[in-house]
Amino acid sequence: MRNIVLIVEYDGTDYCGWQIQPNGVTVQQCITDILCAIEGKPVQLNGAGRTDAGVHSRGQVANFFTESRIPADKYRAALNSQLPESIRIIKSFEADADFHPRFSAKKKTYKYYIRNSDFSSALTCRYEHTVSGKLDTDKMSLACKYLIGEHDFASFMASGSTVSDTVRTIYEADIAVDGSLITFTVTGNGFLYKMVRLIVGALIEIARGKFPPEHMLDLIEKRQKATLAAPAKGLFMHSIEYR
Amino acid sequence: MRNIVLIVEYDGTDYCGWQIQPNGVTVQQCITDILCAIEGKPVQLNGAGRTDAGVHSRGQVANFFTESRIPADKYRAALNSQLPESIRIIKSFEADADFHPRFSAKKKTYKYYIRNSDFSSALTCRYEHTVSGKLDTDKMSLACKYLIGEHDFASFMASGSTVSDTVRTIYEADIAVDGSLITFTVTGNGFLYKMVRLIVGALIEIARGKFPPEHMLDLIEKRQKATLAAPAKGLFMHSIEYR
Repeated sequence: MRNIVLIVEYDGTDYCGWQIQPNGVTVQQCITDILCAIEGKPVQLNGAGRTDAGVHSRGQVANFFTESRIPADKYRAALNSQLPESIRIIKSFEADADFHPRFSAKKKTYKYYIRNSDFSSALTCRYEHTVSGKLDTDKMSLACKYLIGEHDFASFMASGSTVSDTVRTIYEADIAVDGSLITFTVTGNGFLYKMVRLIVGALIEIARGKFPPEHMLDLIEKRQKATLAAPAKGLFMHSIEYR
Repeated sequence: MRNIVLIVEYDGTDYCGWQIQPNGVTVQQCITDILCAIEGKPVQLNGAGRTDAGVHSRGQVANFFTESRIPADKYRAALNSQLPESIRIIKSFEADADFHPRFSAKKKTYKYYIRNSDFSSALTCRYEHTVSGKLDTDKMSLACKYLIGEHDFASFMASGSTVSDTVRTIYEADIAVDGSLITFTVTGNGFLYKMVRLIVGALIEIARGKFPPEHMLDLIEKRQKATLAAPAKGLFMHSIEYR
């Protein structure tokens, strides 16, 4: 059995997220359906992480096992020729048998795009959350520093998750400003359900002056609950680093 | 009567171009319908240039005359609140009575995006023409130089146009390469019907080695007819400069 790995880029706008579910079209479903047809038998496709409905990806990692003799790098073209344009396999290759997209992952990086403008862009509105009014990006940068390190991020986990260990390590969290576009980049060893979007929600409230940058520390330390999740459309699973 | 000018950004994917036509939704129609409702009477909206179905814009310029007392800069928000997300007014302001988007234009700049890759991008495929195989961008750059200056571009005018004076001046024509993305930028005093897409079609044939860079000169001087128009999706009306 060979272990085939896929790097998957997708525009999540029209999908009910990554994970197969009974109602609605998902990215995992689209790829699995084609793989099953290629292999002529059921295929179990594992993803590195579930992305919610509307969340995008530049670097989702998935794997499946096969006994076929199709060269690993040929799966890319074979899948792309049948996938909708909004899902692309950007790489396919063979990995060691013990490689698992989720369990072997060391670091994951997400990016969130905020357009600080009175109006959204006709060209990039699918990939940005537009926020009007003055946002203080210096305060956002200060607030980001509190995220770095090992913390219990229970206050940044949306209800509906059954995860019990809520301690995660954040290696990098920062803001980059390019004109009216604010990009939040966060790298960690793992993320809780809606954690990035809840962090971004808090950052926006801080940037608006509703709370000082130290509010981020309050949320982490005092176990206040972050309640404002930024919308899915601005979020990208950017890349995953492996051992 | 005040002369109100709009700068319009749009994703042309779902429109039958700029110009109002009997069958199909156009950008001019969408804006005109809302303006008529705001003004309570018929409004004639003039654009700087017709863009074809599927062509995008970052800087279409349009104007209309009004006797209303709505401040010029308020038209932006008023229109954006009712327009589909794929059309945005990025600026609205008052101009002199004799300003005309088309006749007052001095220079127009178009950009065309080519993704040189075996597969399109899930995230940017609406805005790029994907071309597989090796493209020689040095040859494209050389070919661009033949475009600069005043020439009769009759060989770069698609059939269906009634324009008789086919002489145009190109001030700038160049290629920029960023990874697998090739951006063609062209600035001129005006462009014939499908001229930019026919130029890009020729550039792609040159980049593939089908013709040498001098082929561009042949097309201009010998009045050979350019026949391969690159698809609309890669083309952007980028900006317009006025006297």
